[in-house]
Amino acid sequence: MGLVIISPGRNVDSWVKNFNSLDSELSIQVYPSIPQPELVEVAVLWNHPHGILKHFPNLKLICSMGVGVDHILKDPEIPVGIPITRIINPQITRSMTNYVVMGVLNYHRQFLRYQVQQKQKLWDMSSPELEIRVGIMGVGSLGSDIADKLLYLGFDVVGFGKSNKKLPFQYYYDDQLEDFLKCINVLVCMLPLTNSTEELLDDKFFQKCLPGTYLINVARGKHIKEEDLLVALEKGYLSGALLDVFQEEPLPSSHPFWEHQAITITPHIASITNPDAAVPQIVDNYSRIKSNQPPINQINRVKGY
Amino acid sequence: MGLVIISPGRNVDSWVKNFNSLDSELSIQVYPSIPQPELVEVAVLWNHPHGILKHFPNLKLICSMGVGVDHILKDPEIPVGIPITRIINPQITRSMTNYVVMGVLNYHRQFLRYQVQQKQKLWDMSSPELEIRVGIMGVGSLGSDIADKLLYLGFDVVGFGKSNKKLPFQYYYDDQLEDFLKCINVLVCMLPLTNSTEELLDDKFFQKCLPGTYLINVARGKHIKEEDLLVALEKGYLSGALLDVFQEEPLPSSHPFWEHQAITITPHIASITNPDAAVPQIVDNYSRIKSNQPPINQINRVKGY
Repeated sequence: MGLVIISPGRNVDSWVKNFNSLDSELSIQVYPSIPQPELVEVAVLWNHPHGILKHFPNLKLICSMGVGVDHILKDPEIPVGIPITRIINPQITRSMTNYVVMGVLNYHRQFLRYQVQQKQKLWDMSSPELEIRVGIMGVGSLGSDIADKLLYLGFDVVGFGKSNKKLPFQYYYDDQLEDFLKCINVLVCMLPLTNSTEELLDDKFFQKCLPGTYLINVARGKHIKEEDLLVALEKGYLSGALLDVFQEEPLPSSHPFWEHQAITITPHIASITNPDAAVPQIVDNYSRIKSNQPPINQINRVKGY
Repeated sequence: MGLVIISPGRNVDSWVKNFNSLDSELSIQVYPSIPQPELVEVAVLWNHPHGILKHFPNLKLICSMGVGVDHILKDPEIPVGIPITRIINPQITRSMTNYVVMGVLNYHRQFLRYQVQQKQKLWDMSSPELEIRVGIMGVGSLGSDIADKLLYLGFDVVGFGKSNKKLPFQYYYDDQLEDFLKCINVLVCMLPLTNSTEELLDDKFFQKCLPGTYLINVARGKHIKEEDLLVALEKGYLSGALLDVFQEEPLPSSHPFWEHQAITITPHIASITNPDAAVPQIVDNYSRIKSNQPPINQINRVKGY
């Protein structure tokens, strides 16, 4: 197998090491040094320069290095007819779910309130739990795992997605967004980033939320119109937010989110793709392609996920 | 049924209301006003004055208003031969579990680290998860529920208790405390407070922990020798602690825990007994006693829980 890794600005040594340990005969080229583009059958990508894939005449498989494929699909020169896959595995799912469960529990049990009270040396036992109903936008493999774990912990969960699905909890779809938002007060954004979800969470959207809704975004920064989020916090449509992703990453030091009292920031660590788990999936998918089997975790270019 | 509620310093109006709504013919007396002690068949207690129960010649049932019964058993004048019950119900269990899961996830995902980094406007994606193995001391109905939920979230769980049990996870008991402490790095104290567990967590105990163990105590403050906990943090036997209970409550404002960087304090709110759920259990147990059935959630005076 001839493989190219294109992830500008990232140190991919651990990926190369993992590929080599799995198959020592592999030809691996790492962007920007690609002296033999004709050897490339598999392109492993994260934020590649648009148009670069047309230089690989023997390309058979395009692999995202993580869960999202928005960074691939926004390139208008992606060659047609070549399957695109993403990485989903139990470790990614588990990390993502545990991060969201942490966010939900911290809100439900008012962790930030008790931190403030500790600073004030205040012992206040009143109203220790907030009543919550968690809405999950995007109930694919990651979103449904979050729902499953929250249900197991005893929470009310409601889902929202693009199309009708049979799920073991209340579910709204398509044009029922308003009904969905009216019955939840914790909102978890797990949507894929597509043309129809980019900046979906804007002023108009936030006005439809129950006043004081708490927002958790672990999907993409571009789902949120950031200036509108600040207004929503100011006007009380939202009571606070836990954000792991941002329009620009790293979040610029001048950004108002950093100092906002109601916003908790983590540096895009809700789920990190571990090459130990990702690399075997890519190698396996290459074997599948070679033997005319469909690759696993292939995405649908039209849907965008 | 004649009933007395003895809980000095607590407003028990909601308990009285709940009893009345369940049985309007009930005779309810509330300490310190007990004009007709001979009517008392059921004593509902939280931190009662020692010796008071001998004034009730017709007493048939002693009920703790919460999960713990240490406040009852430490009274040397508790009449013999009268069953003692505690309150356990799904709501208490759920609250307690969710609090502990919150504490475990905040440690595992380094919530406090990211709060500090936010203040510094620092974007550091390195090592987002700590590898943890959670040890639960005390695996009765509450402790095993915590274990069950943590296992479901994908964590390694190890239990420790007084006697041998068959459990769906690794379990140490009796004199195997050292082996238990050597294989875990998050320690959840769920023990009942008895003569053998009072101040069990002292300097000698902390020295047996893996360096940097994180402590969560949701049992009783008296399990911990508090000055030894401070030493253990200083020496690195422990890396931090989430504490919901203390030797003296409310925690005095002069107490060094309030300002300790590695200690997170909540004001005994991990689980609060809700009278809505507790009162029917007490009424039901009275009926059981009257019809010579054993009450539910009866404790063993010798074991102390």
